Amino acid sequence: MSFSSAKVEQGRRGTSFFNSRWVQAPDGVEELDPAQLAPGFRAGGAHCGLKEGGKTDVGLVVCDAENVVSSILLTRNASSAAPVRVCRDRCERGAIRAAVVNSGNANAETGEKGYADAVAMCDEAAAQLGLRPELVAVAETGVIGVPLPIETVLGGISGATANLSTSGGVAFSDAIVTTDRWPKRCTLRAGAVTLSAQAKGGGMIQPNMATMLCFVQTDAVVGDPDAALRAATDASFERITVDGQMSTNDTVLLQATGSSGAPLPEGLLEAVLLQLAIEVVADGEGSSRVGRVQVDGAASAVEAERVARAIANSPLVKTALFGRDPNWGRIAQAAGMALAGEDLEEIGAEAIDAAELAEDVAEAEIGIRLDRGEHRAHVWFSDLGYEYVRINAEYTT
Amino acid sequence: MSFSSAKVEQGRRGTSFFNSRWVQAPDGVEELDPAQLAPGFRAGGAHCGLKEGGKTDVGLVVCDAENVVSSILLTRNASSAAPVRVCRDRCERGAIRAAVVNSGNANAETGEKGYADAVAMCDEAAAQLGLRPELVAVAETGVIGVPLPIETVLGGISGATANLSTSGGVAFSDAIVTTDRWPKRCTLRAGAVTLSAQAKGGGMIQPNMATMLCFVQTDAVVGDPDAALRAATDASFERITVDGQMSTNDTVLLQATGSSGAPLPEGLLEAVLLQLAIEVVADGEGSSRVGRVQVDGAASAVEAERVARAIANSPLVKTALFGRDPNWGRIAQAAGMALAGEDLEEIGAEAIDAAELAEDVAEAEIGIRLDRGEHRAHVWFSDLGYEYVRINAEYTT
Repeated sequence: MSFSSAKVEQGRRGTSFFNSRWVQAPDGVEELDPAQLAPGFRAGGAHCGLKEGGKTDVGLVVCDAENVVSSILLTRNASSAAPVRVCRDRCERGAIRAAVVNSGNANAETGEKGYADAVAMCDEAAAQLGLRPELVAVAETGVIGVPLPIETVLGGISGATANLSTSGGVAFSDAIVTTDRWPKRCTLRAGAVTLSAQAKGGGMIQPNMATMLCFVQTDAVVGDPDAALRAATDASFERITVDGQMSTNDTVLLQATGSSGAPLPEGLLEAVLLQLAIEVVADGEGSSRVGRVQVDGAASAVEAERVARAIANSPLVKTALFGRDPNWGRIAQAAGMALAGEDLEEIGAEAIDAAELAEDVAEAEIGIRLDRGEHRAHVWFSDLGYEYVRINAEYTT
Repeated sequence: MSFSSAKVEQGRRGTSFFNSRWVQAPDGVEELDPAQLAPGFRAGGAHCGLKEGGKTDVGLVVCDAENVVSSILLTRNASSAAPVRVCRDRCERGAIRAAVVNSGNANAETGEKGYADAVAMCDEAAAQLGLRPELVAVAETGVIGVPLPIETVLGGISGATANLSTSGGVAFSDAIVTTDRWPKRCTLRAGAVTLSAQAKGGGMIQPNMATMLCFVQTDAVVGDPDAALRAATDASFERITVDGQMSTNDTVLLQATGSSGAPLPEGLLEAVLLQLAIEVVADGEGSSRVGRVQVDGAASAVEAERVARAIANSPLVKTALFGRDPNWGRIAQAAGMALAGEDLEEIGAEAIDAAELAEDVAEAEIGIRLDRGEHRAHVWFSDLGYEYVRINAEYTT
């Protein structure tokens, strides 16, 4: 057995934040130190012991402006983790002032104690910050099914509160990562507006760990934060797949103070979330290449989506991406499965552009295209290689 | 990286045909030499060059009785291979006398030439056998997207015709296999009835090859062959998954002469197809263990099915099966994904019996169970290990 093709990218592929060929940043965007949060926000982190080696595993981000507007998106998984349920049940979603997070334990499938623990985290953070608990979101990521050592975590929240700082972006980012190979964060200035963001990924679900978290802070004026976050998420996090597995803990939080007096530059939030989403795929479990499949035509939008997802989640297409195999037959097969029962003309080789699958170059971003009608959809996806098996089979509980 | 857990079963696990813990054969079934076909049938095979090393790659099975009844089930993949389309368009499904097969080339995604080639195979077999072409089914398996060397195949059909024999079951079985690690065939006697069957698998789709084929011959009286085959297939081939990929070439053919004067013993066809189906999973690409997930309760049959499939096709559950990890959190996560948007109570550990996932014993058949309502469904599935990646990534086109 050879591992020659298992070239895993060990870091980001450029020095610029916007390094994906698929992301178009708005003109005039300036990159700042990612430690520096958008004006009006402070963050901090601490180590309480959920992760080994003294790593930061508890964090807080807080908006000092009372008139913040916010939007929060939560996983729809019916096995949602306790923090997701607590946010859903208790948070004033449009006015979230702070978020308390931990990594190393997802607090998922932990029953009534888990729910009470997530409530206790909100309550503790609220008390430390002098806020009503309904204004504090909670997000957790890590092992599923293991009770949270709540006293330890509450101690960590005190520690994180003690080092809250306007330059706490890196500490907060460190507090949410689990197996990420590189951090996913930025602070950007565009005209009068500053936006900072921190994400973590690894897969829809990590080896015993769950998931995708993303936090965005800005001083822009955001009139309809739900619409803005929904639209930007639809075009980014909702269009990626590592292993097709919806997680128990996915959470995306946008907070905007409006203190700059200026609106979000058009396309900025979309570009930031898309870059972060593509990095989540690039840093998927054992992933070495990112594919983007585009179905350029289909009978309906629903059909285009179904075909694109079938291709992106096919283990045969994913291993072909890993093995640099321009195997358009597998793409046709997956598309045909998504269209089962229809009596189609063959999707011939001429309709499928799979050539990039075989490109054995430094290029880790591979586009494939399928053209068969009017409607469009596209999905970014990772390859499937030995590392995915190793991470998910050998880290036994 | 360690491969200690990648113990691949290199052969069948018993000397008896019915060797799965999940298959209950009817009482009084006697196993005969699988070369010996059911009375009234002859089969033969030849090497024409589609496979290397002189292996048998063309085959014929023919019923000498004019009053045969038959049923044929074909893949619903919208990218169906040419032979599937030809069977759909031309065959008199209830009266199929013969089937002509080849392995080494799926004749899928091969356009108009491919269709004409499959027609030519039927016509040649019909001419050789003195039958109308509408009474001859065609099935092919192997590489997708490669034109068939039709003259070579037609020559092979002549060769197979020349050695047609009542003891041609093994030759015919050899003619349909591709990467199978062991043959999947039997001849059984139950009372007055004899039934012979040959199948091939490897995955829903093979490395560049497609698929699952199964042929069944019997002298039993089968009043409604469509109903009999549909019911037995629903409980067997329709309940398995290797990689969730519906193939382009799946074909199951039942032929019954009625010459024994006796009906099929209750449960015989079901038991044979289930044993063959489980062997297809056991011999899946790189598979080392077979799981059976049973959702013992759900709000509806549709929901039970969706949850069972979500678990069986989760790469996280499959790698856990490979790694002997009793990871019930991944089962809860996959079930929750299948129930997305519902507001459920947690599916706690107590509802999930995943203990067998961890059994590090010779037992290659692993049962897991999820209990949460009224309705039931179950699916057999393979694990996902290094061999799957190797087979599908390293055999580049």
